[in-house]
Amino acid sequence: MQNILVLGAGMSSASLIKYLLDHSEEKQWKVRVGDLDVEKARAKVGGHKNGEAFEFNVFNDAEKKKAIAKADVVIYLLPAEYLYLVAGECVEQQKHMVSSAYVSKEERLLDDSAKTKGVALLNEIGLDPGIDHMMAMKIIDEIHGRGGKIKGFRFSTGGLLAPDSDDNPWNYKFTWNPGNVITAGKGFSRYMEKDCVKYVPYQQLFRRTKRVSIQDVGAFEVYANRDSLKYKALYGLEDVSTIFRGTLRRPGYCEAWDVLVQLGLTEDAFHIENSASMTYREWMNAFLPYSDIKTPEEKVAEITGLEMDSEAIKKIEWLGLFEEERIGLDNATPAQILQQRLEQKWFFGDKDRDMVAMQHVADYELDGQQKRLTSTMVVYGENPPHTAMAKTVGLSLAITAEMLLSGRIKLSGIHIPTTRKIYEPVLEKLREEGIKAQWKDEEKKKR
Amino acid sequence: MQNILVLGAGMSSASLIKYLLDHSEEKQWKVRVGDLDVEKARAKVGGHKNGEAFEFNVFNDAEKKKAIAKADVVIYLLPAEYLYLVAGECVEQQKHMVSSAYVSKEERLLDDSAKTKGVALLNEIGLDPGIDHMMAMKIIDEIHGRGGKIKGFRFSTGGLLAPDSDDNPWNYKFTWNPGNVITAGKGFSRYMEKDCVKYVPYQQLFRRTKRVSIQDVGAFEVYANRDSLKYKALYGLEDVSTIFRGTLRRPGYCEAWDVLVQLGLTEDAFHIENSASMTYREWMNAFLPYSDIKTPEEKVAEITGLEMDSEAIKKIEWLGLFEEERIGLDNATPAQILQQRLEQKWFFGDKDRDMVAMQHVADYELDGQQKRLTSTMVVYGENPPHTAMAKTVGLSLAITAEMLLSGRIKLSGIHIPTTRKIYEPVLEKLREEGIKAQWKDEEKKKR
Repeated sequence: MQNILVLGAGMSSASLIKYLLDHSEEKQWKVRVGDLDVEKARAKVGGHKNGEAFEFNVFNDAEKKKAIAKADVVIYLLPAEYLYLVAGECVEQQKHMVSSAYVSKEERLLDDSAKTKGVALLNEIGLDPGIDHMMAMKIIDEIHGRGGKIKGFRFSTGGLLAPDSDDNPWNYKFTWNPGNVITAGKGFSRYMEKDCVKYVPYQQLFRRTKRVSIQDVGAFEVYANRDSLKYKALYGLEDVSTIFRGTLRRPGYCEAWDVLVQLGLTEDAFHIENSASMTYREWMNAFLPYSDIKTPEEKVAEITGLEMDSEAIKKIEWLGLFEEERIGLDNATPAQILQQRLEQKWFFGDKDRDMVAMQHVADYELDGQQKRLTSTMVVYGENPPHTAMAKTVGLSLAITAEMLLSGRIKLSGIHIPTTRKIYEPVLEKLREEGIKAQWKDEEKKKR
Repeated sequence: MQNILVLGAGMSSASLIKYLLDHSEEKQWKVRVGDLDVEKARAKVGGHKNGEAFEFNVFNDAEKKKAIAKADVVIYLLPAEYLYLVAGECVEQQKHMVSSAYVSKEERLLDDSAKTKGVALLNEIGLDPGIDHMMAMKIIDEIHGRGGKIKGFRFSTGGLLAPDSDDNPWNYKFTWNPGNVITAGKGFSRYMEKDCVKYVPYQQLFRRTKRVSIQDVGAFEVYANRDSLKYKALYGLEDVSTIFRGTLRRPGYCEAWDVLVQLGLTEDAFHIENSASMTYREWMNAFLPYSDIKTPEEKVAEITGLEMDSEAIKKIEWLGLFEEERIGLDNATPAQILQQRLEQKWFFGDKDRDMVAMQHVADYELDGQQKRLTSTMVVYGENPPHTAMAKTVGLSLAITAEMLLSGRIKLSGIHIPTTRKIYEPVLEKLREEGIKAQWKDEEKKKR
């Protein structure tokens, strides 16, 4: 029997643990699931004979050492900021570790000793980051292998709704961390277009969108996702003249979200003392100029230059931000108040299904021809907890752990899945699970 | 002889030191001016027989103790963050101290011991904060003294140009710290209008202006200056339904400045690696969407919704932000690049004269009548260094120190000039120096 240690039994662990238990008989795996809340771990294991739930506190050194000692591989799902505590012990005990987290400064310090001890610490194994890296590198290595020269590379991901659950004017519900959705894009984003670096401040981000059409699933809009320029070095694309990483939303979302941004409703840097006793309408009005005669609706339209009966204003109305209903949340930041309201309105229910869409577009030159390779992945979720989000993240982690156990992946030190040694076997196996992209490779139309 | 210790001989010290030396014979004062750069101190003292320049390092404990030991009163003009170091020693040696700085947390801790030792630490003695407090409290105490009830209180200040130096389309030059002008309004501002608290995010601040007319000097626009609500408690105006603190600019300034804000050019949170080799035009273009056909000028007009021949776009052009001229500043933030350009274009020359304008408007009820008291102060500067800014700040400090020396102000502990014991004698003396407000008290017109 090989032992797999899963640390963390939150929402995102369901599909991961299911995959491991479903294959445990065949593969001779023992799956141990540790969480501070042992009931959560038990619920996920569901009494499976090859599963075991136990109480786990990442700050308890003795517990940590003991749990890791029994494991052949560790899958880390707890908060990213404590990852280095577990990673350090994994290096010490020479156990491989897999996680979806970004590499932190603290973890980075473990790279040398992980290499010396022959331990693999594999990060950014998830959807975004994760599958996006793998699909990008598969395309890039393929084109380079054929002798092609990549001129432009654009890729975008969206956690969205399956068409049968897409029943509100925003075409959106929370299928992932709501806090991240509220604060998305704060500060600056950056990308490169035809050799020009472009900086996009928060107040322009949701206005500077592009339309994207994805085969079979329709129209989207895309906004820049943080610093696209770092992918030039990460993907070995130093010579491209265009590099863009984006986030996908359904058309109309960004225009309406921009209204909230422009008014300051997504701010989290200050608290509103009397927020508990305010209504949403009063709160909204506090961000609008004073008027004896104009309604808040009229003022929003005036400030944003939108028509009163525009789709964007209708979306804001649909959120209930103009309603005389008490907020009931004390001394809250605007972002906290907005999040509370959105969690009511964008609630992802038991009968809902989500959809993950990802598209990579590589423009390249081969034998004097200008070509374009478009890779499209669409994954539909089942009802929660086995959403497309949970599946894409969970199966990436589970399969990577499986490959480490079988010896199919042999690495030491810290790695992200931009290396062929990871993406090739993992994408192959993800394909068997229905997580796969379609490629369209064609000559580029002249304008 | 009484000894006055002036710490700091920067730009803002000129009018202060001149006043002290001009009165030194009559008042029997010895004026010692300390600065890290002794040449600066010497230039200000100018060989006056009652003056003395010396090298002073605020971090040298022995120097500090010695300098303070010789003084009867200390005027602090060094950076605000080191004030508590001097204030602590002043309390220790029982010497009064005056400064224009806000009260820091560190200084706040000295309040009890200052009271016990009978030492006055007088802060916010300048223009804004400073004269604004004094004029506000004089009005408020006057109205309350007559039995009036204040309903609304608005006050605004601007450091602007005298008409004869007002020769550029912005009607503005740097008469004070340029960095503060670039970052003015970042984060949130707040005020209260007719019992409604209003929050104004940065991206709305320069759009939500009001027109103000000031007698003899013409039209201005005013934008909200930080947190106006704190003045309710500070000025004893807990029951007002309107409180607003603003900054004055000439009409059209805010619309054009808002263009820079919307594009992200005032940001200081990130650095542009290759800024040295870029031109201002390239830099500007990096904040605009890519286009094969449109010029940066056209794109700015399109994004902001302004006409190409609008006054705002002309102001941006006048700044030279569209020019193909090298920036030459390495790895700079957008705000640093903008500041460099503005320091060239908004340079306040030797022959320039500035103007300080301040207006307080109190709406109140007296004997069933709705009344309005408008207090207006306009101060014109001489050529630098004796600008209106330097005069208003310097004379406030000098006169307050004088009042402490003569015993006309008797206080202990930390105070700002909202108390009658400070503002009454200081305003009286400022009036003799030509720094005075005109009051207009009238029945309010019905709408």
